[in-house]
Formats: sequence, structure tokens, C-alpha cells
Amino acid sequence: MEQKSKLKIIPLGGLEQIGMNMTAFEYEDSIVVVDCGLSFPSEDMLGIDLVIPDVTYLKQNMDKVKGFVITHGHEDHIGALPYILRDVNVPVYATKLTLAIIENKLNEHGLTKSVKRKIVKYGQTITLGSMRIEFIRTNHSIADAAALAIHTPVGIVVHTGDFKIDYTPVFGDSADLQRFGELGKKGVLALLCDSTNAIRPGFTSSERTVGKVFDNLFAENRNHRIIVATFASNVDRVQQIINTAYKYGRKVVVEGRSMVSIITIAQELGYIKIPEGTLIDIDLLKNYPNEQTVLITTGSQGESMAALSRMASGIHRKISIQPDDVIIFSSHPIPGNEKAVSKVMNELSMQGANVIFQDTHVSGHACQEEIKLIYSLVRPKYSIPVHGEYRHRMAQAEIATSLGIDEKDTFMLNSGDVLELDQNSAQVTGQVNHGAVLVDGLGVGDVGNIVLRDRQNLSQDGIIIVVLTLNRYNNELLAGPDIVSRGFVYVRESENLMEESRLVVEEAVYSCLDRRISDWTKIKNVIRDSLGEFLWKKMKRSPMILPIIMEVNI
Amino acid sequence: MEQKSKLKIIPLGGLEQIGMNMTAFEYEDSIVVVDCGLSFPSEDMLGIDLVIPDVTYLKQNMDKVKGFVITHGHEDHIGALPYILRDVNVPVYATKLTLAIIENKLNEHGLTKSVKRKIVKYGQTITLGSMRIEFIRTNHSIADAAALAIHTPVGIVVHTGDFKIDYTPVFGDSADLQRFGELGKKGVLALLCDSTNAIRPGFTSSERTVGKVFDNLFAENRNHRIIVATFASNVDRVQQIINTAYKYGRKVVVEGRSMVSIITIAQELGYIKIPEGTLIDIDLLKNYPNEQTVLITTGSQGESMAALSRMASGIHRKISIQPDDVIIFSSHPIPGNEKAVSKVMNELSMQGANVIFQDTHVSGHACQEEIKLIYSLVRPKYSIPVHGEYRHRMAQAEIATSLGIDEKDTFMLNSGDVLELDQNSAQVTGQVNHGAVLVDGLGVGDVGNIVLRDRQNLSQDGIIIVVLTLNRYNNELLAGPDIVSRGFVYVRESENLMEESRLVVEEAVYSCLDRRISDWTKIKNVIRDSLGEFLWKKMKRSPMILPIIMEVNI
Repeated sequence: MEQKSKLKIIPLGGLEQIGMNMTAFEYEDSIVVVDCGLSFPSEDMLGIDLVIPDVTYLKQNMDKVKGFVITHGHEDHIGALPYILRDVNVPVYATKLTLAIIENKLNEHGLTKSVKRKIVKYGQTITLGSMRIEFIRTNHSIADAAALAIHTPVGIVVHTGDFKIDYTPVFGDSADLQRFGELGKKGVLALLCDSTNAIRPGFTSSERTVGKVFDNLFAENRNHRIIVATFASNVDRVQQIINTAYKYGRKVVVEGRSMVSIITIAQELGYIKIPEGTLIDIDLLKNYPNEQTVLITTGSQGESMAALSRMASGIHRKISIQPDDVIIFSSHPIPGNEKAVSKVMNELSMQGANVIFQDTHVSGHACQEEIKLIYSLVRPKYSIPVHGEYRHRMAQAEIATSLGIDEKDTFMLNSGDVLELDQNSAQVTGQVNHGAVLVDGLGVGDVGNIVLRDRQNLSQDGIIIVVLTLNRYNNELLAGPDIVSRGFVYVRESENLMEESRLVVEEAVYSCLDRRISDWTKIKNVIRDSLGEFLWKKMKRSPMILPIIMEVNI
Repeated sequence: MEQKSKLKIIPLGGLEQIGMNMTAFEYEDSIVVVDCGLSFPSEDMLGIDLVIPDVTYLKQNMDKVKGFVITHGHEDHIGALPYILRDVNVPVYATKLTLAIIENKLNEHGLTKSVKRKIVKYGQTITLGSMRIEFIRTNHSIADAAALAIHTPVGIVVHTGDFKIDYTPVFGDSADLQRFGELGKKGVLALLCDSTNAIRPGFTSSERTVGKVFDNLFAENRNHRIIVATFASNVDRVQQIINTAYKYGRKVVVEGRSMVSIITIAQELGYIKIPEGTLIDIDLLKNYPNEQTVLITTGSQGESMAALSRMASGIHRKISIQPDDVIIFSSHPIPGNEKAVSKVMNELSMQGANVIFQDTHVSGHACQEEIKLIYSLVRPKYSIPVHGEYRHRMAQAEIATSLGIDEKDTFMLNSGDVLELDQNSAQVTGQVNHGAVLVDGLGVGDVGNIVLRDRQNLSQDGIIIVVLTLNRYNNELLAGPDIVSRGFVYVRESENLMEESRLVVEEAVYSCLDRRISDWTKIKNVIRDSLGEFLWKKMKRSPMILPIIMEVNI
């Protein structure tokens, strides 16, 4: 009997480096890639704009790659597409809103013409090589989110994407639990499930519950202008703010580039319904009394360039914060943003605004009971926790165990791991190229660890440059040594120190020349060592020391 | 009738720059300074170790300054003493534990001999010039915390320091509410009250409640080694861990330099009671089975050099994390530390440890009801919210208003403000020198905005240095232009770019020399502009460009 091939599941990102979600599913001559996200640089990635997954493996197997299948329209699932499609130009499949957001992005990068795209509906199945991909309705903090059932010759794999279960969503229908159940009855080989909230007990509240909170806040603040900051992509949240504004007879202005762009798309496609005459242009705001207006804006995470931050620091071109403005932060700070959010809150508060932190705890991700529900419907043979930090994925692994899945059938994968599986067995059989590619300006991948380490050093104590000119023939010192520093000390107030440093270097140089040392590397090392030691003793600082020697033919 | 002088209250730190708490009280020829704290650098203060208040005003009035009066032993109230006492050498007054912690600090800086110090007991009053300072018992997350009643010729000013009201403290007695009441009956001119938790409703729980949590955790984890991370200075928390360890028959190891130092001091002075034979040396840990040991360690805030972080990343010299270790984080992350804490938690989790986040919400600061209680006892004429971000102080101002204090009698001061007050009136009459002095290595104040801006620029896109040597007499180019970069791109993989850059610079230099431009500043500007423009077009990056011209006499 012929041996059937195994399915390979290869996470190419999104595990150690949270954000840039990407998983390859490979069966014989077909590779299907789920999601193509970016992540934002961590603190030690100085000067980096964004981070995308290393797709060397896909490039090496270009003939196999059939397409990108995208679960929803958040940056951490779509953001790397404009960069990666340049090298891996295959069709992109997604639901309507998701694809519209992707198209907007491709447009900005001038890629709309070169990339094939196809809208897929919930319940629809597309065939990509030896696999069929079915889109299943779920709920999330953006509309049109889908889970995927990947039908392969060795069994069905379910990938939840980012999801929650919202029985009363603001837009559209509740997650298609029946289909998860049906697939489970047929038998599911493996489940890749969202772990983001796996350490939170209970059930995530319905987005609809936030509506009542807005209603109360609007009722309490009838005499004030209201400004609400939230995530640009949370269309349902914006819908509820607009509904409340309409109920209280207020005009609405939407502000912030990404917010305007997504709301425009959502409105065109019918994902948000705005009563006629409610939305007004920002320039018309001055025609209405404060208490008849609402501003919905970006900047809820304290992002320094976002509209709200610019209002807070008084540099927004069109909106000035007024005393008695009521400003509602309608989103929880993402870990790492707490201080930035506090800063903006304080600035707003200093201008007399009443700042309200609306801590609804309504998340877009499944809590423990929802995760248990999905496992109980799908009943997979193998569990592969995805999305979330290690401890979050570990918490899901523990949930899986508690539901009867064998510990040896639960896989805590690392990026690049090749998990080979079928009905009989599953194991990690190898590793492919993987990792984070840093994007800095137009450069993709030209900044690596050495450059980052230099930036790190430069940022701590600055740089001291030592230049000198030697005569090529007799190694005579023709000019210098001169010392120039940046980011070290304020030179005008430290003239003595700079002069002492120059003398230390001069002595070091002459000691080399006197000993007829002509090896520049050696001279540079002597300079670096003697000046480094001098400054450490004197200042307990270690600036980068960069000796540059020029030579002149005379 | 002779006009009495007014009292001046001058915050010299701790308002905009959270942390470095310091307030001067001045009456005629006497200045008393309350607290002398440091703060830790914000993210944009690259390479800075710590930040202390600018005390130019005190130096200018050295003959008036009578002493430092310290409310408690936390870094944000004592940390700047070793730096500031060098210039402003006056006696330091504090309670026993507080002074012992200060002495330990002075010792490290070799200042124990030169600085006068005096222990003050609760209820005791010291006379400093025209003012008398009374120490009043309060509660806080460190023992021996005191509020101060400052008796001046124009009235009594109460300064709470950092405080909470703990009716059942682990060590010592509850805050001396009676004395606050007594002072209030006499009449209090002004109250400076802690605002840190002024946006939190209710009452802060007693530290004692944490004991029960430990008891449960120890009961649930009888078969595991337990590691508890908390603040080094929270002696009462350590006491409760030790009590629980003793109850469950475990030996205790204390690890982390600051933790060992404070616990040693606390034990010597009787502020912590450790049953004999319970505390063991870290080297003896291996003699006991895991389940009979507890490790109390620093690092609960994810500080990269702290003991727990070193264990997590496997570089601690004496402790290796073992699978099945139970690790309890017994402190809430301070805003800004969330990501670092998560990182350590994930690392521990990857080594198989069970990581528990003990979110007790037991804080050392008064919540809204406690603040109301103090106001109701003290009933000050003027309210001056201190300690906390702007919006926290604003929240206290609102509480004061709600309790009947006139809005015009509530002062939201800025650092450097001079508030002049007496029974008849209070107003800000001027500003003195104030601000943050940056400490980098041994340098105090030699890093300012220009240096920080350079470090910021260097950290983003690195630096490109252009060197060339000119003949002094005819401006002939003798060597270069050479280009050296650091932190820009990885040069080996960008040889073309570097060569193109060199050509751009060469052309710029020759264009100057051909036009007989001999002004070096002009040549440098042309180099900077042409290379800057080239790199921005090509890369969308703006490295710092530093042209250096040398000249040779031939």
C-alpha cells in the first residue's frame, strides 16, 4: 500500500515575535499561507519602523505557494503583505471588508495592479492546490473575521484566527458555532486556536454592552463637547458611538488618517450605517455648539503622531482642546503603551478637559470559557495554541489538557518549526529559515544585529571620533589628532575634559609612532583603549570611540 | 502694627517629574526641605542613570537652609541625598528605619562622616530656625513612614508624605488619626496630601490581607519550591512571606542586593522578626529539598539586572529555575514596566515554572475615602495636592472641592512655583530655578538637551562621518573624502550604497573647491545637505552626518 504524505504546519512568525502572524500549511506540492502580519519594533530595535516575517522558505518554494489566505483586517495579520508580495506574488483571499482594507494598503504601495485578489464569503470554500480552504464566520473587534477549515488529504485543520464569540454582535451574525460542531463530528485533525486571553477566566462580553456605557456617558455630559478615542479599526465601536450621538442629536466628526480611511471603506461596503446628516466635515465643526458635537478620533494608545496626541499637545491643526471638553478613552492600553497613554491623559487634563478612562474590558479575543467551547465543538486530535505570548499559549495548552487532549498531542511550536502530522502521528521534524526582518525607511532587511548594537551603544553615551592624518611614507603625524564628540557631553561646558582627552590620544598616537608601529589597526586599538580607560575612570561612561586615520602622499 | 511675613511653599521637584520629591518651606531666614528624592529616566533620556532635582535655589540661599526632613525611606524621597548633600550639606532628620536606609546610601558614597543626622521619633518635634517640625505616625508600604506637621509663625502646615491608613498594620501601629484630628481642631493652614491613588475609589486594603493570600498559595503548592518576587523595601510583605514559610516548615533565602541590604537593616533594628533557623544562606539551599524552601527575591518589576531576571534568563550564578518551581509576582507593575514584567514571566514559563501573578491590589497609597478622612480630620484652609501625575492631583483637588474647600483655595502648583500664604491669603508670587538634573555615570548635570537630542538622533539612524584633509595653503584635497558609518546600515552588505555616498560627497567637495570656497563651515554644510538629500531619497533615512575637515601644512 502506498504511504500517504504528511501535512506540514510551519509557523513563520507570530510566536516569539508577537504580531507578525503567518503560518504555512504544506501538503506535497502545495503551500497555503495563512495571514501575513507585521509587528511593531520592540524597545531595543532603535530606529526601526516595523518588523515583518522572514519568508526565505516561501521564496525557496515559490513554485508550491498557492496563495495567502487572510483571516481578518488587522495589521498583525495583513501588514506585511505589501512587503512580502513583492517577492512572493501569489493571489490573496479574504472576506469583503478584509480585502478592501488590504486593497487600500496595496494602493498606497502601488501594488494594486500586480496582485491578484479574490473575495471569499463565509461558508465558501476555495481550492488551492491539494488543499481546500473554507471560511467560517467568527466575531472579533473588526467585522468580517473568519476562522479557516483547511481540508487536506490527511484531515481537516481548523485555524480560529483572532476570535471571540459574540452572541449579540453589533454588526452581522454570531460565530458559526454549528459549523464548528459539524466539522468536529466529521473529525478534526488539529486545532490552531487564539491564546491571547487564555489566562482570563470566563467569557468575553459582547461588544454591544459598550453601547449602554456610551449612553450613560452621553446622558451625564449633555452640556459638553465629547471626544472619544478608540482603535481606528473597531468599526463596531464607532458604530455605537455614532448611534449614541444620533440619539442625543449630536453631529459627528471622524478624525485621524487611519480612522477616516477605515470608516470610509466600511461605509462604502455597508459595514457601518451612519444616519444621513450625522457625519460632518471637521471644518464645519465650528458651526455647531460644543454640546451638539462628538469627535471620534485615533490616539487611544497615546501614539505620538495620532490626532488625539496632537490635540493634547496643542499642535493639531484644526482642533483645540477646550476646558470642559469630555474626553473618553474607549480602549484598554496595549502592554507597553501605558506611559504614553498617561502622558496624553495628563496633557488633556492640564488643558482643563475631563478625561474619562472607559475601562469596558470588552476584548476581541476569546477568554477561557470560549476556548473550551471551541475545543468542545471541534474536538481536535492535536492542539496547537497560537496567537499570544508564551505564557498565554501555555495557558491554552493547559486548557486543552483539562479537556482530555493528551499532553503529547499538544504542540507548543516555535517559529520555523516543521510539524509533520497525520492521523497516526505528529512530530516536529525540522526547522526552516524564519525570524524577523527589520524595515527602516525604504530599507527592508539591511539593518541587522550589528547595526542595532551600534545604535544602542550610540544612544547610551554617544560617540567620540578621533581623526588624524599621517604621511604615507614616513608615518609622520601631519594633522590632528582632533576630537569630535556627539551625544557625549555638552562640549562648551566640558572644554577641559575634551582637551584632556585630546592629550591622552596624542600621547597614545606618539607612543605608537615612536615605536614605529605602522599597522593602523594597532594604532586605532591603542587610541580606543587609552581614551576608553581614561573616560571610564574619569566619568564612568563608555562612549563609542571611533578612530579614523587618513593618509597623505607628500 | 508690624506686618508678619508670609510662609513660602516651594515645590522643587516631584510634580511634572514624578519621583524626585522635594518641597522647600521658607519663613524669613529659615528654609526647611522636605524629602530629597530621585526619579528614574524617562524613555527619551537616553543613557541617563537617574534624575535629581535642580537645587540652585537652595545653593543661592545656603545660609537659610536648616535641614532635610525626610518622610520615609523610598528612593523617590531619599535617593538624591548623596548628590545634593555635597553642595547643600545640612543635617538630615528622619525616623529610625528611614535614617538607617539613608546611612547605608551615604556610606556607599563615602559621605557618612561629613553629614550630620538625627533620628526623630513619632510625636517628637524638632526646631529648625523659625519652624518646628513634628513627626506623625502614618502607614505606607515601608515601615516608619511619617507625616509632618510644620509649625510656622503663620500657622500649621500638614504634609502627609506618602501614606495610607492601615488599621491592622503588619508592623507597628495604625496612623495617628487622633493627632491629625487634634491639629485640625487647633486649625491647619494648609494640607499637602498624597494624590497617587486619588482616582481610585474606596479604601486601600490592609497589608495584612496579603498574608492570607500567601497562606493559600503555600497550601496549594506544598510540593514545589516557591519563589516570591516583591519590592526590596516592602519589609512587611517580606515579613508575611517569612511567617508563612515558617508555618509551612520552609527555609527562606533572601536574594538580590537591595533586598539583602534592607532586610539586614530591618532585622538589626527590629523592624522584621525572623524565627531562628529560618533564614539560610543561598549556598546552603542545595542541602534542602525544593519543597522545604522559599526564595524571596528582587525583580518583581522586570528590572533587567535584578536577581529574578537573571534567573529567568539563566545567568544567575547560584539559582537555576527548575520545572515545577512556583514563582509568585507579589507586586503590581509600575506603569511603564508592564512589558519587561511580561518578558520575565514568559522566560520563566518557558523553563517550565508555574508563574502566578498575585494581583493583591494592596497599595501603599491612600484611596479616595482615606483622602477624605484626612481632609475631614485636618480641615485645612488651603489644599495643595502633591505626589502623583497631574490628573491624580486634579482628582484630589476635586475631592477637596467636594468637601467644601473653596476652589480658589486649592493650588495645583508647578515645580518652582513660590506659593506665599498666611491666614488671610495665598497666592503664587513667583518662580525659582527648578528642573531635572541628569546623572550619567559620575557626571551630574553635564548632559543636557543638546546631548540628549544627539543621542536620540544617533539612536534612530546612526551616524555617517565624512573626513577629508585639505592643504592649508591652496585648499587642495590631499586625502579623502572617506566615509565611515556606525548604526546606519550593515556596511558589508551595502558596499554599493557606501560607494555611491562617497561619490556624492566627493562631487560636493569638488564643487566647493572649484568655486574656491574656503570657508569650512560652508563646505561642511554642502556635504551635509547633498549627502542628506541623497540618503533620504534613496533610503528614507536621516542619519546624523558629521563632516570633519583636517588641514595639513605642506
